[in-house]
Amino acid sequence: MIRKLTYEELLQRRKTIDEYQATAKHPISIMLNNIRSMYNVGTIFRTCDSAAVSELILTGYTPYPPRIEIEKTALGAVDTVKWQYEKDILTAIAKQKADDKHIVAVELTNTARSYNSLTMSDFPLCLILGNELVGIDDDVLAECDDAIEIPMYGVKHSLNVGVAAGIAIYEAVKAIDTNR
Amino acid sequence: MIRKLTYEELLQRRKTIDEYQATAKHPISIMLNNIRSMYNVGTIFRTCDSAAVSELILTGYTPYPPRIEIEKTALGAVDTVKWQYEKDILTAIAKQKADDKHIVAVELTNTARSYNSLTMSDFPLCLILGNELVGIDDDVLAECDDAIEIPMYGVKHSLNVGVAAGIAIYEAVKAIDTNR
Repeated sequence: MIRKLTYEELLQRRKTIDEYQATAKHPISIMLNNIRSMYNVGTIFRTCDSAAVSELILTGYTPYPPRIEIEKTALGAVDTVKWQYEKDILTAIAKQKADDKHIVAVELTNTARSYNSLTMSDFPLCLILGNELVGIDDDVLAECDDAIEIPMYGVKHSLNVGVAAGIAIYEAVKAIDTNR
Repeated sequence: MIRKLTYEELLQRRKTIDEYQATAKHPISIMLNNIRSMYNVGTIFRTCDSAAVSELILTGYTPYPPRIEIEKTALGAVDTVKWQYEKDILTAIAKQKADDKHIVAVELTNTARSYNSLTMSDFPLCLILGNELVGIDDDVLAECDDAIEIPMYGVKHSLNVGVAAGIAIYEAVKAIDTNR
């Protein structure tokens, strides 16, 4: 019969902060540009911990820790995820390129590939997610190597940015883990 | 050069409410049990619109429309997604089984398969997501045909329920669309 894992079984699977920080991360950086909501930033911190990404980079007017509202949804992940704030996103992108990262926007663009078309040649990867209302600005897109899009079948044609980040991040993780 | 889709290009892709309601949906029902946060419920409404699932079923003490706090994050999706409220989840599951749905919990359990192992034999599918803190109760799991889990690589070992729903729902959509 199906039953939930017990607390002890969960503990066996869980890493301590020290163990986690000593573990190799997925070669994925996440860059947020002008995200407005601290709730969304906290949720993305939590997803970055769960997916063990290398780094979270907060840019523009995206709020950054310490903020009680971020920590409320990050549930401790601000202490486990490696993160930095860089006001100017073009500077942040230039640094990622200097580290040989493939810069990929999560955005509906004229050239976007499907979000599930990532292959090993896309890594090391830097995924960019933009503002809740206006997305990623065209001057930022001009610096991107590529764009991926999540298919939209509905009337509203958009997802919450924390949800979109989660779908894209886990897709990237899967592309790595199934090719190792 | 990469540029964002223009408003006109987006409009061409977007369906009207009438067109959407006339379109065949993915054979996926989403069932929520004892979700506490209206923000999370609204976010999941929005994802259900985007993914064009058949139905959203709210059970237990999960809040349901009309609630201004749900509509704030659903952004209109309460009017496009077919939904119902059923207080008793076991009754709701029995109805889904009578419709030949395969009942699958999104939960860390003793027998869970990976979230990316869904095949056409899992459809028509009813995915169940549980409370933000305690997940899905064992008496509900006992009525499920199967469980899937999203891999957790971090310290916190959990995702926001709206994010987890998004990852699982889009994985189910992909399993259908790549096999059509």
